[in-house]
Formats: sequence, C-alpha cells, structure tokens
Amino acid sequence: MRLLEEFDFIDSIQPAYYRQSSVVKGIGDDAAIVRYTNEDTIMTVDTMVENVHFSTKTTDAFHIGYRALAANISDIAAMGGKPVAYVVSIVIPDSWSSHALHEIYRGMDELASTYKMDLIGGDTVSGKQLVLSITVLGTVLKGQARYRSDALENDIIFVTGTIGDAACGLHILLDESETDYERYQYVINRHRMPTPRVSFINHCSSIERMALNDISDGISNEANEIAKASNKTLIIDYHQVPSHPLLADFTLEQCLDWKISGGEDFELIGTVPANDWATLQKIAKETNIKITAIGMVQDDEKKNGTVWLRDGNTLNKLAKSGYTHLRG
Amino acid sequence: MRLLEEFDFIDSIQPAYYRQSSVVKGIGDDAAIVRYTNEDTIMTVDTMVENVHFSTKTTDAFHIGYRALAANISDIAAMGGKPVAYVVSIVIPDSWSSHALHEIYRGMDELASTYKMDLIGGDTVSGKQLVLSITVLGTVLKGQARYRSDALENDIIFVTGTIGDAACGLHILLDESETDYERYQYVINRHRMPTPRVSFINHCSSIERMALNDISDGISNEANEIAKASNKTLIIDYHQVPSHPLLADFTLEQCLDWKISGGEDFELIGTVPANDWATLQKIAKETNIKITAIGMVQDDEKKNGTVWLRDGNTLNKLAKSGYTHLRG
Repeated sequence: MRLLEEFDFIDSIQPAYYRQSSVVKGIGDDAAIVRYTNEDTIMTVDTMVENVHFSTKTTDAFHIGYRALAANISDIAAMGGKPVAYVVSIVIPDSWSSHALHEIYRGMDELASTYKMDLIGGDTVSGKQLVLSITVLGTVLKGQARYRSDALENDIIFVTGTIGDAACGLHILLDESETDYERYQYVINRHRMPTPRVSFINHCSSIERMALNDISDGISNEANEIAKASNKTLIIDYHQVPSHPLLADFTLEQCLDWKISGGEDFELIGTVPANDWATLQKIAKETNIKITAIGMVQDDEKKNGTVWLRDGNTLNKLAKSGYTHLRG
Repeated sequence: MRLLEEFDFIDSIQPAYYRQSSVVKGIGDDAAIVRYTNEDTIMTVDTMVENVHFSTKTTDAFHIGYRALAANISDIAAMGGKPVAYVVSIVIPDSWSSHALHEIYRGMDELASTYKMDLIGGDTVSGKQLVLSITVLGTVLKGQARYRSDALENDIIFVTGTIGDAACGLHILLDESETDYERYQYVINRHRMPTPRVSFINHCSSIERMALNDISDGISNEANEIAKASNKTLIIDYHQVPSHPLLADFTLEQCLDWKISGGEDFELIGTVPANDWATLQKIAKETNIKITAIGMVQDDEKKNGTVWLRDGNTLNKLAKSGYTHLRG
C-alpha cells in the first residue's frame, strides 16, 4: 500500500459509531478514553507476525484479523472478564493490498460486533513484514478475576469444548494431498474462527473460586502454568480429554499431539471445588457449552508444580512442551 | 536471539515489584489488572519499526526504548492525563543480541520510573525486523480530558519548550561531516530523550478549557488538527515560535523546516482563553516549563479548519504537511 492510500485507509477503518456507552472518546484525538465504575481494568496484548504465526497460504486476510482478536478476547475470558475495546497496531509491507488490509479489519470487526467491542485507536506504519498487534481492554468486577494460582487440593480439572480441533484443522490446511475440505469444514473453522468462551465464564459469578487459563498453547502448557502458579499437582486422565469425532480419522499419535500440545482452540481449562461441579455443569448447559471433567488436583509436596497424564494404569509426567513418554 | 534465550529474556524483564498500588495483577497471568476510581481510562498505542522510525546508526538500543515510551506518554499528557502502566509488544529478529534487547527495556524503564509507571504485560515474538509497539494506560479525572476540539475564538495559542530541537538533533546525527557533537549535545539529547510534559499539564486543573495536542509530527500538523477538530482558524506568528539558540548555527530554511514540520519534540501545543493566560504562565513558572504565546484563534467562516502562518505583514496558509509559500 502506498503512503497516500494509507491516509484513506486510516479514515476508512474508523467506526461510524461506538457500541459501548463507556467509550468517552474513540479514534480521533491523541488517545482514547473509556469510563466504567466498580470494575477493574483488564489489559492484554497479542502479536501475530506473517510467516511466523500465520501464512497467507492457509489463512486469508479476514481470518487473520478474526483469529488475532479471538486470541486476545480469550485472554480476557481467562481472567473472568468482559472485553470492551481494542486498539490495533499494524505494520504493513508495500506488497499488501488495501483490499487485504480492509479484510483484516473486517475480520476483527466481525468478532468485535459479537461482544459489542469498539475499535478505539491504533497505529498504522510501514515495514517489511505484516505484524498485527492487538491490545484489548476489558473489565471485571472488583475482586472477581480468575487467576491461575487459585487451584486447591481435590479440585476438579475441567475443559470447555473439544480439544485439538484447531490443530487438526491446521493440519488439513497444510496437507497438500488432502482434498476433502468439506468433510473437515468444522475443524478448519475451529482454526480460522475460534470462539472465546466469554459468555460461559461471565455466567460463573456464583462460583467463588476457580483457577483458570485459556488454551492457546495446548493443555500441557496451560495445565503446567496452573500447577506452577498454584503450587499443586495436576493429574489429567488422557482418556477423559474430549475430542471431536472427526479426529478418529487420524492416528492415535496425531490425536495425542493435537489434544495435548495442539493449542489455539481458545477453550478454557480450569479447576473448581468438587462441590461446585454440579453448578458449573448447570451453567454450561444454560450457556450451551460442553464441559468435561478431565482430572483432579492433588497436594503432593514431591510433585507440586507439575502435571501428570494418566493412561489406564500408568502415570507419566507431562512437560510444559507437551512431551510425555506416552508419545511415540 | 535464539528461542531458548527468549524464555530467559522474558523472565528477566519482569519487574521485581510494582510501583503503582493500582496494579492488582501484573505480568504472569493471561492479562494484567489495574484498579482506580473516579478516573477515566486513557489508552494509546505507538509503534516504531527499525529503519523506518529509527536506525541503529543514530539511536542506540537504550534510546529506542526511551523515545518510544516518551512518544506514548506524550499522547497521555496531550489528553491532560497521567500515565500509569504499559504493555510492550516486541518483534525480534535473530540478529538482535540479548544485551541490546535488555537495553531497550532499560531505556523504557528509565523513563517509566520517572512517572512511577509499571510494565504490566507484553508479547515477545520473532520476525524479520525489529518492531516495538507500546500501549500505555493512563488516567484522567472524569470530564477533565483535553481535546483538540475545544479551541474557541480569541483563544491564545501556546507551545511549551522550544520547537525544532529534536529535528536539529537528528540532522546532526545524520550529518556525517559533523564532528562537534559536544556543541550540539543539547539538541541531540532532545531527539534521544524527549521529556513528555506530564507534570506541567497535570498542574493545569484550574484552567477549565484548553484545546491540546502534543507535537509529534510538527506544529503544522498539530495546529491543523486543532483547527479542523475545533472548526476554527489558527493564526500563528512564525517569529514567535520559540527555538533554541543553537538553531542560529543553521540556515533560515533549515530552521523553518525544523520549527514547522520537524516534530518529535513532544512539546505541547494548545489554546486557552485569553483570561487564563496569566494563570497558565504562573503554572509554567511553578513547574519550570517555558511557555510561549505564538498566535490567536479566529472564527472566520471562510478559513475555519485551516492554519495561517504570519511572517511580518504576509499571511500564508500552512498545510498539514508543513508546506507554506514561506518555504524556499
């Protein structure tokens, strides 16, 4: 995109109106201003780089925008919060067309409209490689944030949705011999347009304590973060980790890889007191979310800070990277 | 930097403590949480790309960090606010050493400590070209934000500090024939370590109305933004625009260019009612800031939305780009 087009482009991405009454000042001054009361501010940033985090071979511009914002909103959900607004910093190489850039913003806006989020600012600069960096502002009622460090002994470990779908979808897109895209449309869409679990988590306010993470890097990584932050031992039963029926088309090894270290499903993994499990199931049903108990939290001085994967009668340590003896 | 080093690097940039009591959760969960009351949230993002916004030839890593954060804080000042916290997204090429990256963060922290700001999050990814994108969170008392759109007829137009210093400093750094760096240390430092005018503007709460912009792109651009947003005519007397005595070493044409379109001084340009001018001068004196009246706001239906530069008896339209008939 040329410089002169850039001014038009910046004008063209400005929203005609703001969805949130909390937006006091949006785009068009030195900075944006947002107002709310009785709520804490949540802030998170996520950056995606062309040919590192996505490739135009597997992801079109619309989905680059959609997925980048989804990743950020998922972080807000993992804190128990509500997304409110976002600012976008984009580095644009000359080779990108104005149409493709508009598609990125249309992808973001498509998801933003679901949550009534507003684009309130940004910076548009030129460079060698497309870099899309989104900062999301969210709110959470005072003292009601969900931390990784809140797991306690005998908590039930749960996940939302099915795990490994996005990694399977990406595999299909990368596999040049694969032609039956129609059969795999569901997992392809899970890669391209993941759904952050905002609605479900915002209905959980009656549950006092919950450790929580979103699954951006695979459950091996996320469970290890909870184990470390809470200084507890997480025991996950591999056969309880829910997966989509389509994964049955693939080898056990592929499924293990996708379910344990796949990531980018943007589902939630958390722990709740056993007493709250029935309530959580009820909330899940009401918000139309599948939840599955996949293990238990133990307090074992020798193992605290680590995660163990149960496969029948054997128990293997699960590294942050997803490496386990089950593999191969 | 290699991948394994990256984990150490992320660990090493985490602050040992938070300066602000408003930081409920800093680095180490899915997102950061900040709490304040009676104040609105200000948010701004600024992105700097290697060989576009800076070059390692003229700017060392420490100053890349310092200047990038200064640019963001200046936007908060231009809204009349206080900076509170920041998140950093950085794209790192393999060629950058871990030492240089630490210097970038040290540069940011040097300035952040002045304002008791906290680094509360970020994203560190790899790519072809260094990209440093900072999002700053600030606060402003409800209803006390300073907008570009608040200029009215007969307001006095003022600037803080001296204008064109940073552009002069960059010129010295780029001029390979120049060797007397000692003589030009002041303007070089104005380029490398600009001072956002936070303290001055935070003392202006007794002044009810003020249009305000920070000078990131030159007063031609900033004054035009005020004229357009306020739908008024700004008349600036070129000979009143204050410059540092060192600029006398250069041609009138160079000085005109630096003073009108130089930018990156991160001084403030604003308008206040004539009645408030004495108060503003008093505040400037108390906060040890130079302020200078450089013109007046007019309400002229035929000219509203534009800026005019007076040079003795002639008046020339000043384009956003800094172009004027005075030039050349």
